[in-house]
Amino acid sequence: MPEVLFSIDQSRSFYDQAVPPHNRWHPDIPPVATVRPGTEFRLECREWFDGTVHNDDSANDIRDLDLSMVHPLSGPIAVEGAQPGDLLVVDILDIGPVPQETGPVAGQGWGYTGVFAKGNGGGFLTERFPDAYKAIWDFHGQIATSRHLPGVRFTGITHPGIIGTAPSHDLLGQWNAREAELIATDPNRVPPLALPPDPQRAILGTLEGDAFERAAREAARTAPPRENGGNQDIKNLTRGARIFMPVYVEGGKLSAGDLHFSQGDGEITFCGAIEMGGYLDLGVDLIKGGMQTYGVTTNPVFYPGNVEPRYSEFLTFVGISVDEDGRQHYLDSHIAYRRACLNAIEYLTKFGYSPEQAYLLLGAAPIEGRFSGVVDIPNSCATLYLPTAIFDFDIRPSGDGPQRADRGSCARTS
Amino acid sequence: MPEVLFSIDQSRSFYDQAVPPHNRWHPDIPPVATVRPGTEFRLECREWFDGTVHNDDSANDIRDLDLSMVHPLSGPIAVEGAQPGDLLVVDILDIGPVPQETGPVAGQGWGYTGVFAKGNGGGFLTERFPDAYKAIWDFHGQIATSRHLPGVRFTGITHPGIIGTAPSHDLLGQWNAREAELIATDPNRVPPLALPPDPQRAILGTLEGDAFERAAREAARTAPPRENGGNQDIKNLTRGARIFMPVYVEGGKLSAGDLHFSQGDGEITFCGAIEMGGYLDLGVDLIKGGMQTYGVTTNPVFYPGNVEPRYSEFLTFVGISVDEDGRQHYLDSHIAYRRACLNAIEYLTKFGYSPEQAYLLLGAAPIEGRFSGVVDIPNSCATLYLPTAIFDFDIRPSGDGPQRADRGSCARTS
Amino acid sequence: MPEVLFSIDQSRSFYDQAVPPHNRWHPDIPPVATVRPGTEFRLECREWFDGTVHNDDSANDIRDLDLSMVHPLSGPIAVEGAQPGDLLVVDILDIGPVPQETGPVAGQGWGYTGVFAKGNGGGFLTERFPDAYKAIWDFHGQIATSRHLPGVRFTGITHPGIIGTAPSHDLLGQWNAREAELIATDPNRVPPLALPPDPQRAILGTLEGDAFERAAREAARTAPPRENGGNQDIKNLTRGARIFMPVYVEGGKLSAGDLHFSQGDGEITFCGAIEMGGYLDLGVDLIKGGMQTYGVTTNPVFYPGNVEPRYSEFLTFVGISVDEDGRQHYLDSHIAYRRACLNAIEYLTKFGYSPEQAYLLLGAAPIEGRFSGVVDIPNSCATLYLPTAIFDFDIRPSGDGPQRADRGSCARTS
Amino acid sequence: MPEVLFSIDQSRSFYDQAVPPHNRWHPDIPPVATVRPGTEFRLECREWFDGTVHNDDSANDIRDLDLSMVHPLSGPIAVEGAQPGDLLVVDILDIGPVPQETGPVAGQGWGYTGVFAKGNGGGFLTERFPDAYKAIWDFHGQIATSRHLPGVRFTGITHPGIIGTAPSHDLLGQWNAREAELIATDPNRVPPLALPPDPQRAILGTLEGDAFERAAREAARTAPPRENGGNQDIKNLTRGARIFMPVYVEGGKLSAGDLHFSQGDGEITFCGAIEMGGYLDLGVDLIKGGMQTYGVTTNPVFYPGNVEPRYSEFLTFVGISVDEDGRQHYLDSHIAYRRACLNAIEYLTKFGYSPEQAYLLLGAAPIEGRFSGVVDIPNSCATLYLPTAIFDFDIRPSGDGPQRADRGSCARTS
Repeated sequence: MPEVLFSIDQSRSFYDQAVPPHNRWHPDIPPVATVRPGTEFRLECREWFDGTVHNDDSANDIRDLDLSMVHPLSGPIAVEGAQPGDLLVVDILDIGPVPQETGPVAGQGWGYTGVFAKGNGGGFLTERFPDAYKAIWDFHGQIATSRHLPGVRFTGITHPGIIGTAPSHDLLGQWNAREAELIATDPNRVPPLALPPDPQRAILGTLEGDAFERAAREAARTAPPRENGGNQDIKNLTRGARIFMPVYVEGGKLSAGDLHFSQGDGEITFCGAIEMGGYLDLGVDLIKGGMQTYGVTTNPVFYPGNVEPRYSEFLTFVGISVDEDGRQHYLDSHIAYRRACLNAIEYLTKFGYSPEQAYLLLGAAPIEGRFSGVVDIPNSCATLYLPTAIFDFDIRPSGDGPQRADRGSCARTS
Repeated sequence: MPEVLFSIDQSRSFYDQAVPPHNRWHPDIPPVATVRPGTEFRLECREWFDGTVHNDDSANDIRDLDLSMVHPLSGPIAVEGAQPGDLLVVDILDIGPVPQETGPVAGQGWGYTGVFAKGNGGGFLTERFPDAYKAIWDFHGQIATSRHLPGVRFTGITHPGIIGTAPSHDLLGQWNAREAELIATDPNRVPPLALPPDPQRAILGTLEGDAFERAAREAARTAPPRENGGNQDIKNLTRGARIFMPVYVEGGKLSAGDLHFSQGDGEITFCGAIEMGGYLDLGVDLIKGGMQTYGVTTNPVFYPGNVEPRYSEFLTFVGISVDEDGRQHYLDSHIAYRRACLNAIEYLTKFGYSPEQAYLLLGAAPIEGRFSGVVDIPNSCATLYLPTAIFDFDIRPSGDGPQRADRGSCARTS
Repeated sequence: MPEVLFSIDQSRSFYDQAVPPHNRWHPDIPPVATVRPGTEFRLECREWFDGTVHNDDSANDIRDLDLSMVHPLSGPIAVEGAQPGDLLVVDILDIGPVPQETGPVAGQGWGYTGVFAKGNGGGFLTERFPDAYKAIWDFHGQIATSRHLPGVRFTGITHPGIIGTAPSHDLLGQWNAREAELIATDPNRVPPLALPPDPQRAILGTLEGDAFERAAREAARTAPPRENGGNQDIKNLTRGARIFMPVYVEGGKLSAGDLHFSQGDGEITFCGAIEMGGYLDLGVDLIKGGMQTYGVTTNPVFYPGNVEPRYSEFLTFVGISVDEDGRQHYLDSHIAYRRACLNAIEYLTKFGYSPEQAYLLLGAAPIEGRFSGVVDIPNSCATLYLPTAIFDFDIRPSGDGPQRADRGSCARTS
Repeated sequence: MPEVLFSIDQSRSFYDQAVPPHNRWHPDIPPVATVRPGTEFRLECREWFDGTVHNDDSANDIRDLDLSMVHPLSGPIAVEGAQPGDLLVVDILDIGPVPQETGPVAGQGWGYTGVFAKGNGGGFLTERFPDAYKAIWDFHGQIATSRHLPGVRFTGITHPGIIGTAPSHDLLGQWNAREAELIATDPNRVPPLALPPDPQRAILGTLEGDAFERAAREAARTAPPRENGGNQDIKNLTRGARIFMPVYVEGGKLSAGDLHFSQGDGEITFCGAIEMGGYLDLGVDLIKGGMQTYGVTTNPVFYPGNVEPRYSEFLTFVGISVDEDGRQHYLDSHIAYRRACLNAIEYLTKFGYSPEQAYLLLGAAPIEGRFSGVVDIPNSCATLYLPTAIFDFDIRPSGDGPQRADRGSCARTS
């Protein structure tokens, strides 16, 4: 076990930690430690809603979540000698839930997948699923099962939802400008088009006083992925992955959090994946001047992890960019993938799952979402690969018809 | 070798075949054969541009292609007992290029990948690549190499770009209505938003006279994937795949064509993949009433093939939905994937490839394109997985810098 | 399709071909063609028993086979510039059954797996299965099914059982000496310990007259693998494999044959695998002096093919080196694997297969046989991996007990 | 983290633990805990030589090891309701090294691979390597590197070398009888043919006094795998594996130990694998009467783990059953695999490794050892698959010759 450079006391809110995390991106957040290239270390991480989601059978907690608090990130860690223009090489050595005994915080032997209500965040299918739902998952080593999804058992593809370097002031300015421009096109939209800087509930590590006030007004929210990596929600950033991250500030200032026990491509439920607190072991190195040399100037590149759960048989659903009302869109892969998801949900209901259960499942299980055709005007084609081995019954079509059964219920609001 | 139910004389245009193919979708196209469930058979297929692309070093042929002729489809094959509401079970048993000796038609030992000029079809990156380009690929068993892309050698993931059942008159009407509505929003756009029915160069199998005239005016173009399958360009519909296809008309009327020796997810170059003529061996069966029973009412579902080339190491590129001009888009996975593609192209140029070569490569090699985050407002996150083993040099980032070399040139226009 | 350098008329015995194959290894067999490094070509191959096994339901043909005729090999092909000490680089580009229509010879849409009677060849489990048995397999693209093994359907891992270079006179002398020494320890054993040179039914390509007489007396039988490769029966030498073969004579003199549609590790039934005639497409190149430079002096090395059928779930059987009578052997992996095979057979009988059916299945399906422990005195541990997806019922243990059914019968002797 | 049912204080010898482990198999060893079917729990495990191998650069410790002490096993755990004839279902949920900080005991951030001297245990290649050697491995999450094997870096395939149920008195009697019979054939052999019961240094959990004396005289040594599982050294019993184990006594009495951070098929170095102390999380269930129902009467069956490190490219070495002196053996897969190992070692020396380094590497890295042909008289054919990606240089043969370099040295005796 490598040295812990960021500790979390899982019994306390992240607002009350000895060394506070940060839930915004800003270049001025001071590093909690500085390490040499070649160092390996551990970050302890708080689950993204700070322990306010419970291991119970009601989705009221999901309904009432406060999105302004997310995501508590552990770090930043500065790397000696890292300068703007370098590539920070980050190895994902290990990752897991909170090692302590069973407890009340996600990560302590369990995790959760939620669907946000449309009025509070929404999700990929929010028009179809405007209310809040939840599934609790129990951890058995790397395997997950859920009392809210009987008949399902799979090996998780554990990863950090968020890992990123600090933006420069200049880059942060670009983010704020372009996102403000988008918001301005429909400022009152529900859910919103983007989340502007918001000092309320902001926490910026050890930054205090005026420096805090100034930074909190301009610090970027953690919801989206951006040029620094961030909330990419790439499930394949699992054990064994190596990421090459652009460095925008002195020291690089690496932070991570939002650990997922598992997730399907797209993290379609938004309060998605199987959320947990836990630990993340990283190794760091540098490629000096690598951004220019390799042309990695806009986003990270990476090798995916090589211990992904090995599924080789899939039932695959297809979607095209005609929306639910039959309206034709022009080469819109987003809609195509949404339709593939809806097709999968429709299919799963024939076996006895409720549409909400199916939606929660697709957010959490290691499904693959692929771009198939993106040029065949006017229809994009997207495909969703559902591993058949995660079900303890035969999910494949046959002349016998679907094995319909009572498959229980997910957690709902009261 | 199963019985050939559709023959092609590769020395002649598809307009001059004994039994003509069809290059439109229409319920009235008569079946060329009727088979029982359980039958296996072979379709011979003509490459999508009818032999007008040559094995040479000029992209003039690509520049001048006539899109109204595509795609010559082999079939339809009717299945006894198939009725609207059934699922047609289609096994992809085998597929390969034209077995005859080396010859002038794609599929005879070679194939091509093209980039359309913006004024004649365009492609996924047409703003960046407005001209026509071409790469010729030589076949070595299932392996492809190209004099236009030295240093690259990969095993193809061979599949039919198009496989589909006939639409009903009603469904065809919906297609035409919704696509016309889209076209009407910008009727003079270049490239166009969609392709309306066009009797010119239409060929509808053995349909003749008034029946032909009537059908040709309303028959759907083959470019897009739709509810019947069609031009899905799903590379994983390779040997061993099983497709469950909705049946919309008596007999189902299965057709296929547009064979690809290989393709990357997205077929981003449009005149993409590695195009070839060849053969396709299929087996068919029925699940009576399966559309309703399994809820497969909108698009096919399938098992992917299980003899895909086995690559396990990738360099992965990330894209987000901020466009090339820095403008923020709202959760647009299409743009995110485009940015991932552009990032990959930028990277490959550091090794000595021209951007055009890199673009052609991404269309042809078995790259994987994935939806990563689709809910993290305002940025979608898409990822492009490039198998590292397809290069005969080390493509991975390191402190030594990229192995830059003279990597030749693709075919260009004169 | 590359140029055919060795043709077979599948309607005639290999003794009656225009250019005869050879069924012994000898340095004096003249090459049928000489090619440059970099050349790709096709060899047509005769199935190993020359068409004397029939597509019927009796194993009498297997019982009565004449082992002195095997294996008709196609070649030799000489490579320009190849000299003793070089490594011959051989790419397995493609391989498949006889392309012609359904016919009476294995490879024409079907193949066979046999169990030899103990008195005529025997096999891995000949003490337990002293009689002859047979299963006929039907080919569906790359998929095999058998009326003698209902409930089973798998993708074959197609490969040449035999591929090798010619031995030098000196090496041939060593082979004959060491094998004669072994035979001398128990010359009348049934089945024999090894097969000595035997001019009867020998065929040595175009060699004739005195040269033939001399060579036939000393030419090595094709049954075993040796330093030249030969009958290695390595199922992973499938499409995409590259073999580095020692060169012992001028030109290397490459030959191949004994094509298998599929095979399990070990080819335990001996008349094993799924035997077929067909074609084999190869590419050749040279590494000058490579035997010494790379220390590849005793046996070939290779990359396995990369389009193997993709199975990821297995039920695995364990065997240790205690024999069927309970006698302890010292670290004997051969016995350990035999026990693993017998354990698998015992298991399969619980589902309704006869032991003979199970034995035939393990010889033909893409099972994996692994060395597990080889040092834990006194027991070796061997494991047999049976892909669960090849059965159309659930083969895994559970509280419900095995799904026993009438599973028909294999072909037997009358 | 599930409840710890067996604790180890890694700072003390296993002879001084609060609850002692056991290093022999015997039905009378009392269970340390009894659990219900469905329970999940953790066993902490001591490394097999009790901390007497050090993280240093001398192999003297390996040379002087006392084999009579191995292997300290954690357990036994009794399962309620388990009776002879049942199958005990065991899930391998998680496994890892000692979680504590860096320390002096293998498992505390590091592990070791050793080669025993011929006079003290020997190994698979002891005739060629009669002296003692050692390599120390550093752990980085699931990745291993070694200062004694520069240029190598791989993801481990972590597993328990030993997991087994208790034998009945009757079965134990059979073991002792058959092994005594073997030993009697050459009682003074070095290394010995088998290890008889030996009360010296025996530890049998909490068994004491007369019961201990009696049991110690007859308890079976832990070296070999047997009908109860035991020291199977199957590397694929990694996370996600499920084992179906025969139950021979009331409660089943499950024990495990000899944890490996990684291992190659065969564990050819004997003091092989990468040895470590650590933890093992298991889940248990029962199939009543399963031994008879499923015919699993002799050895366990299992599903392999599904999070194995994913390597897809290999350089494969072939061996046949002709020994190092050129003597022909009859179908001896053990010799064939030995020759494949020696061929691989010879090859690796061309890149600058010493033969001893190469031997240590093959014992530790996730190589695959396969039975290829086992019936082609007189030669067995065995194959060793070496993943090419574990080297940081190109290990494949080419016209450029091997990249020879100074690759340091392993630990040796002084």
